[in-house]
Amino acid sequence: MIGVDILGYEFLGQINSPTDLKKLNIKQTEQLCDEIREELINTVSHNGGHLASNLGAVELTVALHRVFDSPNDPIIFDVGHQCYTHKMLTGRFDRFSTIRKEGGLSGFMRPDESEHDPFVTGHASNSIAAAYGIYKAKNLNGEKCNCVCVIGDGAMTGGLAFEALNNIGGTDGNFIVVLNDNEMSISQNVGSLSAHFNKIRKKPLYYIFKSFTKRVLRKMPALYNFAAKIKRGFKNLIYRDSLFEGLGFNYLGPIDGHDIEELENIFRIAKSIDRPCLIHTMTTKGKGYALAENSPSDYHGVKAFDRESGVTLGNNDFSHIAGQALINLAQKDSKVCAITAAMGSGTGLEGFADKFSNRFFDVGIAEEFAVTFSSGLAKGGMKPYFAVYSTFLERAYGEILHDTAISSLPVRFLIDRAGIVGEDGETHQGVFDTAFLTTIPSIMVYSPASYKELEGLIEMSANINKPIAIRYPRGAEVFPFDYYPNDFTCFSNGGRNIIVSYGIISSNVIEAQKALNAKGIKVDFVKLNKIFPISEELINTLNKYDKVFFFEEGIRNGGIGEHISGRISIPCRIIAIENGFMPSMTVDSARKKCRLDTESIIEIIESENV
Amino acid sequence: MIGVDILGYEFLGQINSPTDLKKLNIKQTEQLCDEIREELINTVSHNGGHLASNLGAVELTVALHRVFDSPNDPIIFDVGHQCYTHKMLTGRFDRFSTIRKEGGLSGFMRPDESEHDPFVTGHASNSIAAAYGIYKAKNLNGEKCNCVCVIGDGAMTGGLAFEALNNIGGTDGNFIVVLNDNEMSISQNVGSLSAHFNKIRKKPLYYIFKSFTKRVLRKMPALYNFAAKIKRGFKNLIYRDSLFEGLGFNYLGPIDGHDIEELENIFRIAKSIDRPCLIHTMTTKGKGYALAENSPSDYHGVKAFDRESGVTLGNNDFSHIAGQALINLAQKDSKVCAITAAMGSGTGLEGFADKFSNRFFDVGIAEEFAVTFSSGLAKGGMKPYFAVYSTFLERAYGEILHDTAISSLPVRFLIDRAGIVGEDGETHQGVFDTAFLTTIPSIMVYSPASYKELEGLIEMSANINKPIAIRYPRGAEVFPFDYYPNDFTCFSNGGRNIIVSYGIISSNVIEAQKALNAKGIKVDFVKLNKIFPISEELINTLNKYDKVFFFEEGIRNGGIGEHISGRISIPCRIIAIENGFMPSMTVDSARKKCRLDTESIIEIIESENV
Repeated sequence: MIGVDILGYEFLGQINSPTDLKKLNIKQTEQLCDEIREELINTVSHNGGHLASNLGAVELTVALHRVFDSPNDPIIFDVGHQCYTHKMLTGRFDRFSTIRKEGGLSGFMRPDESEHDPFVTGHASNSIAAAYGIYKAKNLNGEKCNCVCVIGDGAMTGGLAFEALNNIGGTDGNFIVVLNDNEMSISQNVGSLSAHFNKIRKKPLYYIFKSFTKRVLRKMPALYNFAAKIKRGFKNLIYRDSLFEGLGFNYLGPIDGHDIEELENIFRIAKSIDRPCLIHTMTTKGKGYALAENSPSDYHGVKAFDRESGVTLGNNDFSHIAGQALINLAQKDSKVCAITAAMGSGTGLEGFADKFSNRFFDVGIAEEFAVTFSSGLAKGGMKPYFAVYSTFLERAYGEILHDTAISSLPVRFLIDRAGIVGEDGETHQGVFDTAFLTTIPSIMVYSPASYKELEGLIEMSANINKPIAIRYPRGAEVFPFDYYPNDFTCFSNGGRNIIVSYGIISSNVIEAQKALNAKGIKVDFVKLNKIFPISEELINTLNKYDKVFFFEEGIRNGGIGEHISGRISIPCRIIAIENGFMPSMTVDSARKKCRLDTESIIEIIESENV
Repeated sequence: MIGVDILGYEFLGQINSPTDLKKLNIKQTEQLCDEIREELINTVSHNGGHLASNLGAVELTVALHRVFDSPNDPIIFDVGHQCYTHKMLTGRFDRFSTIRKEGGLSGFMRPDESEHDPFVTGHASNSIAAAYGIYKAKNLNGEKCNCVCVIGDGAMTGGLAFEALNNIGGTDGNFIVVLNDNEMSISQNVGSLSAHFNKIRKKPLYYIFKSFTKRVLRKMPALYNFAAKIKRGFKNLIYRDSLFEGLGFNYLGPIDGHDIEELENIFRIAKSIDRPCLIHTMTTKGKGYALAENSPSDYHGVKAFDRESGVTLGNNDFSHIAGQALINLAQKDSKVCAITAAMGSGTGLEGFADKFSNRFFDVGIAEEFAVTFSSGLAKGGMKPYFAVYSTFLERAYGEILHDTAISSLPVRFLIDRAGIVGEDGETHQGVFDTAFLTTIPSIMVYSPASYKELEGLIEMSANINKPIAIRYPRGAEVFPFDYYPNDFTCFSNGGRNIIVSYGIISSNVIEAQKALNAKGIKVDFVKLNKIFPISEELINTLNKYDKVFFFEEGIRNGGIGEHISGRISIPCRIIAIENGFMPSMTVDSARKKCRLDTESIIEIIESENV
């Protein structure tokens, strides 16, 4: 444990497993934390990824691995926004520079990457439910273990987390929920749970507990356990959180989530209690990198950036165009509301929130509520626009069907990050929305390919009296298609065959069509603006050709290609995302792999245009 | 208000709106409640429907309508299992005998039926979220109102309800949640919330509050409000529920939910408080009908029954076959677990629960948790079978995709009530599962048509190491198809065209094929056992024919017909459920309407078999 490795770290390079970690003393451990922070900032500034949340969870993760025994004790980090330190400490430091790269480490927990990652955690709030399943399975197999979930105060507001607490509370398991309370979800937190945490943080008892544990309890968890069992005595010195105790959890905290000793003490106490415990730790999002501490939202998920000057905030992408279009609409129409589930910044709604605060609703990480609440707003005569990432809307499928669609309520879904998203990989691809939305009767789905189209559709949707989804990709426009208020646009050069496509890859098709034309290969192109329902006019148009080539940046099963193929009378060749999950890789790589890039389109038409 | 109407009721026939209700004195109101109960038992014994839950909510509903001013004050009944009295009191008594009949009243809240039904409530736990949307819309429009949700303790465990509480708590709205606590969801309640309610019920303070309100507060809500505002004084005489107060609600109760005066008092108090309130009422499920009081689960949702002898519990349907098959499996294999979301009885798991209580998990109304928890169990090496109604699985789409499918975990979904369900109508049709499940990579879907097939598939699935769904209909077998462990079975009589179908309507196809053969019309039939993914072998088999007729009891968009149509090279005519929601009607009527009954199949083949 002496010497400095090639990256200049004294300890980090020598931690090959949690066992190595347990050999360090507190001072060495604190230095290790500094080294981890350095590595986090360095790697994320090159690779992009989740920075602020990971910086806040360094000590917490180190302390967990010093007290518990992973993988025998499963430790699950909710969302995985906070699992980078865990990856470094569990034998993956040597590959940490590959994080979020094609073939490299995933940015989220991945069981196929390490036995220390018990479960996939990409979407928020699933950790407690999954961990409890794993815990119960171990119990039924006669194995003893402690099971630990680390969950942010933001993810704690998700209904799935609550359902899990309700099922676990009051049982007799060694089940520990570590609440990583940084007063933020992805942006500023909302709701009464957050207000409740805030109230606790202000209690002077925190300090009593702090000094008390340091002085007395450090080496006597059994005493605490005894006290807890008789339900009297000095347990009352610890803040009694009635909310979590009402749910059947032993509440411990709040404590300083950057104090390694304090953390280790409380983890040992929890370990010794044979009931579910909730440990409330208070952390600072972005800790140790001043720019991130000051603007944690901006440093939540970032692209590669310069360490000294910080991140550059984009303002020329589909999200910002959507946000601006909504502002323009809201200025003219007092019924227009915007709803987000903790993604105000990601979906470009910050300006709207500033200008129309009474018509802006950030409901926290709660997509289900967002949909049902929006449906209620629509029932009450408002014009709700729910801006949401495609992948997160998956969780509200049931609510769209039951609460929006059955009554045909005019909720406008602004579906951001639709299509391939790139480095976030499997858990975040926006490739299912076309398929799952089109199973839902009464909804209309549009897929703009340019800023002008997006603006035009948002304006148009204000006066539509039924559910409508407008889906657009991550990032910037490629080809500046004009907006026409028709269902589809035909780009003809007199071909006998026709390409059908929609959304951002329309730019690739236009380019391919031009290149093919230059080679003397004529093929027409229908660009769909409205992708669902399928119009008779479209079917009639397509039936005039000999063959359809359908290029679709979405899952094939249940996609638009299949809907059209089942209705036309000519052969239809569908090129779409085949049955499987798309791992982390750049958008360009992924498109190439799915044969949706310009070169593949050219190749396919050249070889099959017969 | 004098005299007896033709049905023998003194008051019930004369209540045309809540205004009429307000004219009665307490004694008359109590008699009205008796009349309502009589009408509930009488009508439900003829029409079937939800009985026990409605019997428990009579006084509560009457008192709400006497204190609040519907429709100006929106009153939403969660799930609608408890909205029959509300329907009788809001101008629909004259049509009450048509409830759940084709063209009659819906068994759930329906805004298109009455302005007194603010929102569709068929699936549990959506009421608070929807009501808050409506309430906010009214606020933004400058309208004043009180907004009331009535929700059972069972539905309160759903994540969507919690997300709503979190968003509403701590605001300054006149928002009232009435917790109808009957200690049951659909069957026995589970979880820490339920334990918490139970603890409250045992507090002696309940009685203090009871007599206190009667004596002092009856006519002075302003006094209570004042006391609540200064946050001191006699507010403490009311039980302080820390869980709900932690979530930012004023907690009032618990009170006797069958005492009209008590209820009216507390509703008036809540009305006068300018903060969200949660009123805890205790009711008896099945109240007033001894058979239902004694076995409330059996009388939750019933078919028509004889009043004197009570309901007959079926044991010859797909649910019971599934339950028995699971028991057989669990006897041989100690890894087999069964999971239900408050539907143990409906899905036939009662026997399993008795025999293997440590491997049986009733997680309450929490389908999302059920899926993620099952995925955790599978990750831990168990063999989880989650038995769930098709319509309720919609809410867990995101979890199946993210928590089960990405890691390809072997969760077995036993999907009950798949296909058309009949009288429950729009909100409960099981016609979307084929479409939404087949958007999910890595899942396999089977659709047995007979008991033998169901048994065979459940046994087979124990040794499959990936996600698998087995979907089967409500009710009983029609044609006793033998089980063959192949993907499809061909019934050939030498036709050039072929019918493809799956599931229970395979019985209709077999019958139609026979009738057609008798008329000299030859058509082959492929009955799919495994419906997804589509095998090459199936495609090759179909491509040998001239034309495919696909009959599908499921939504057309994204259904199996489309998946096959996009892969074969011959014409495919799909007859399925077209884009829309199927209202309440018998299964036979619905099938006829969709042209999936035997006669329609014969007609279509006769006219198009060219």
